[in-house]
Amino acid sequence: MKKNTEVTIYDLAKKLNLATSTISRALNSHHSISQKTIDKVKKAATEMGYRPNNLAASLRNKKTKTIGVLLPTIAQPFLSALISGVETTAQEAGYNVVIMQSHDSYEEEVNLTQSLYSSRVSGVICCLAMETSDTAHFKIFTDNNIPLVFVDRVPKHADTYRVMIDNYAAGYKATKHLIDQGCLKIAHITRASEFGNIYSERKKGYLDALKDNNLQIDAKLIVNLKSVSYEETETAANKLFNLKNPPDGIFAAGDMMAIIAIQCAKKRGIKIPEELAVIGFNNDPNSRIIEPNLSTISHPAEKMGQASSEIILKNLEQSTKDDIRDITVLNTEVLVRESSKRK
Amino acid sequence: MKKNTEVTIYDLAKKLNLATSTISRALNSHHSISQKTIDKVKKAATEMGYRPNNLAASLRNKKTKTIGVLLPTIAQPFLSALISGVETTAQEAGYNVVIMQSHDSYEEEVNLTQSLYSSRVSGVICCLAMETSDTAHFKIFTDNNIPLVFVDRVPKHADTYRVMIDNYAAGYKATKHLIDQGCLKIAHITRASEFGNIYSERKKGYLDALKDNNLQIDAKLIVNLKSVSYEETETAANKLFNLKNPPDGIFAAGDMMAIIAIQCAKKRGIKIPEELAVIGFNNDPNSRIIEPNLSTISHPAEKMGQASSEIILKNLEQSTKDDIRDITVLNTEVLVRESSKRK
Repeated sequence: MKKNTEVTIYDLAKKLNLATSTISRALNSHHSISQKTIDKVKKAATEMGYRPNNLAASLRNKKTKTIGVLLPTIAQPFLSALISGVETTAQEAGYNVVIMQSHDSYEEEVNLTQSLYSSRVSGVICCLAMETSDTAHFKIFTDNNIPLVFVDRVPKHADTYRVMIDNYAAGYKATKHLIDQGCLKIAHITRASEFGNIYSERKKGYLDALKDNNLQIDAKLIVNLKSVSYEETETAANKLFNLKNPPDGIFAAGDMMAIIAIQCAKKRGIKIPEELAVIGFNNDPNSRIIEPNLSTISHPAEKMGQASSEIILKNLEQSTKDDIRDITVLNTEVLVRESSKRK
Repeated sequence: MKKNTEVTIYDLAKKLNLATSTISRALNSHHSISQKTIDKVKKAATEMGYRPNNLAASLRNKKTKTIGVLLPTIAQPFLSALISGVETTAQEAGYNVVIMQSHDSYEEEVNLTQSLYSSRVSGVICCLAMETSDTAHFKIFTDNNIPLVFVDRVPKHADTYRVMIDNYAAGYKATKHLIDQGCLKIAHITRASEFGNIYSERKKGYLDALKDNNLQIDAKLIVNLKSVSYEETETAANKLFNLKNPPDGIFAAGDMMAIIAIQCAKKRGIKIPEELAVIGFNNDPNSRIIEPNLSTISHPAEKMGQASSEIILKNLEQSTKDDIRDITVLNTEVLVRESSKRK
């Protein structure tokens, strides 16, 4: 029997022009699906020779039906949203999700990849630790046909799937928005440089937006934080405000950095957005609690999680692989709120 | 060889009057421990006949060195702090931590307990799902000598360890604080009743504080939310403010509920704390972003996590068990901020 002649839920989804999640739920007679759809799906499944348990059976003695998610922290709203997306898609297909935190430590990440491998997970989704500059410890998965997806903070080169946003474009858009509001001296608060794509690409976008709009790049206005602790961010913000030429705009590479900057500015009586326009990144719930509400960049974290899970599931269901160097890039947009809206 | 004659790190800790975490790190020559202490611990270990690898060896072929944490969600700051506490203590002893979310669903919780059992975790720490009213699915652990700790939201009766705060006392303190600020009509926003101890005990504390201070209990001022969605909380807050006798104080059983109530009140021009004093629960980071800053109840979440891990580790190291019906109760305190401070 050739494995790749097996009918999968992807074939059913294609045939019926429905989402795979709908097919999966219809096959399980889930209450959220109409009886009409359930009947249609089950009829097609019978006609096409779909065998619902073939995957489970093939895996039963080899792997757990578990997807491992390894990420720096769960204590960031966009990462917990990402996990939600992973879980929704995984659970519809009958997979559980286990979560592990690397705390941005390379050493912990190496240790946890070994632990995930030993626990026989079916697939792995990883957002790299800030410290990581070498991804050899992930070879254990790709060498053993365990599908691996890097998500959000991904290596520049990888022999596996990557799901990410266009951080460069987002950084450019955020900066351009401040320029459009009339800002001339735009500061950038970000994390110290890293191997990954997040902060370095956002900064490139910031720099190019300034260049393209003939604004001077002032090294004093670029702050590279070692950590995002309240204290370090506060000190950095105060240093910016104490400059002889203080900024009239701030693009922070994360919402919490932007919120702390706003709190510092308010304490000094700086008017927002009139004297200082601020934009953050990620659209954390906090961004709508701070006053004035924070402009930010939307982060499709939940979609990223779903897309990552779908890649893992597709790999587990199909024996013929797609090009595993695929990169999935999701869109972001500028959310304009009171902290930057001058016009 | 009698197992219970083995020298453990607890014996060393007792002998030297040091924390077990210090003993553990000293035995591993951890950089955070002074050379003097390392020498002292290693000397005592040799004298007492401590064998560092006996636990690891005994477990090697039976269990993974992993502690499973099963909780409703990771997307609440106090729960991610709780996990941090679990991890810090576990990792010092060489254990990894895997996290699973039940999304407050009984069905998912049952499913995930089976998954944790199959993956051969060494111990389990669980904060119950809101839906759970029967804990029979945890018997698989206690029946198989896998240490189990219920934390924070715990069953009223359990043949295993429980680590919690005194929710009754905390609810009483929060309400008494509002009474001391001169509030006479205190509303309580909480979640609909549950099997566990969290919301029901906080409400009992609220009711008794009113009674003890001769304030009338008004059923219209008690709001039981089905979910803590923004919309449902907003609707409930507006309903309170539309009452003929609106409240002059609100004790919300969670910070987010309190924050939404403050946002609603501000939209209506209600002055806080002069016309309405508000106190929340948990001391989420958000409580210091909302203006005015939110008074709240401190939640020793990280300590709870550490205490839970310590119980698991102690069980794994010792063959003689303590009374497994132990309840560990941690303290909370009222954090007075601008949202309630009238005096």
